[in-house]
Amino acid sequence: MAAARVVAGSGLVKLPPVTFVTGNAKKLEEVKVILGQSIPFQSLKLDLPELQGDPEDIAKEKARLAANQVKGPVLVEDTCLCFNALKGLPGPYIKWFLQKLGHEGLNNMLMAYEDKSAYALCIFSLAIGPDSEPLTFVGKTPGKIVPARGPNDFGWDPVFQPDGYEQTYAEMPKEEKNKISHRSRALALVKSHFAEAGYVFDI
Amino acid sequence: MAAARVVAGSGLVKLPPVTFVTGNAKKLEEVKVILGQSIPFQSLKLDLPELQGDPEDIAKEKARLAANQVKGPVLVEDTCLCFNALKGLPGPYIKWFLQKLGHEGLNNMLMAYEDKSAYALCIFSLAIGPDSEPLTFVGKTPGKIVPARGPNDFGWDPVFQPDGYEQTYAEMPKEEKNKISHRSRALALVKSHFAEAGYVFDI
Repeated sequence: MAAARVVAGSGLVKLPPVTFVTGNAKKLEEVKVILGQSIPFQSLKLDLPELQGDPEDIAKEKARLAANQVKGPVLVEDTCLCFNALKGLPGPYIKWFLQKLGHEGLNNMLMAYEDKSAYALCIFSLAIGPDSEPLTFVGKTPGKIVPARGPNDFGWDPVFQPDGYEQTYAEMPKEEKNKISHRSRALALVKSHFAEAGYVFDI
Repeated sequence: MAAARVVAGSGLVKLPPVTFVTGNAKKLEEVKVILGQSIPFQSLKLDLPELQGDPEDIAKEKARLAANQVKGPVLVEDTCLCFNALKGLPGPYIKWFLQKLGHEGLNNMLMAYEDKSAYALCIFSLAIGPDSEPLTFVGKTPGKIVPARGPNDFGWDPVFQPDGYEQTYAEMPKEEKNKISHRSRALALVKSHFAEAGYVFDI
């Protein structure tokens, strides 16, 4: 893919379009709706290792690895579901807990605790190129873990009820969810960054 | 470090000593006691990424990364604590759950279940060089999760009581634990492999 290049005499660095690394069509759709035409980007499925550790560090390392492969600007995304009684766990490992234990199992993890509060975390990480330190944009939505309600087609949405709402993520109309979701909040930060940073794209 | 080299005219490949990748002095000590003089090895602390996924895959990938850095034979080790009621979780993520939730929190994760059974898993992975497919050696010890008993100086040992014993790992004399532990079982397989494979070391 095209690498960043300096525009002769201008001092400007022109970037190739941003590669959004995902294999998930639903996530790509959400990103397109929110970022709209403001940023030229393309999507690509890459086989990147999933790391353990602090959520922001995981996202940054993924961005580094992706930028090294793509040789240009990349945007990667990580999602966590964090239970306060479990000090933020399962956090970045929620995928495995959902997969093995299902919605009931996620509720069961909190059986020993009065506190069912939780927060959904979305972290986008942007690396402008292979040698740039990645930036992170963190969106957080507080809520609580409840027995599953609503359509069962998008991960843990049926067991997460955001604060101030009577519905779970799964029960909410999509536009309503997009107003407050962890992903939309993180993407709003990504959008602001692009508006302010004044990157020049080579398109 | 020295790479493998062919001994002229013999058809034999002589290997440099095996590098055991660890930063944990207790693990190194256990490995030395069990492997004894049978295999020439040195230890090295490497900053390797910790991956998510299936325990054997995690160990293999770590061995690949280590062999690439060391350019010679490496042995790496991974430990999991798997709860049957949680379908094998927390498994490779036990380190984070222990760190954040402590011994009581590990017990609390099973509050919703009658079944407190668990197994300790130790996986050694051996890569002979950067281009060799890593081998794995899996040691497993069945038991159950109990409220903490015994000295509190080695991870989750106080909450794991192996089947057939009245004591937790932490309460058992070290020689007794070494007879049945997940780590000693995995190392016994490593030792047998070296005895059978007939590697020739360049020492």
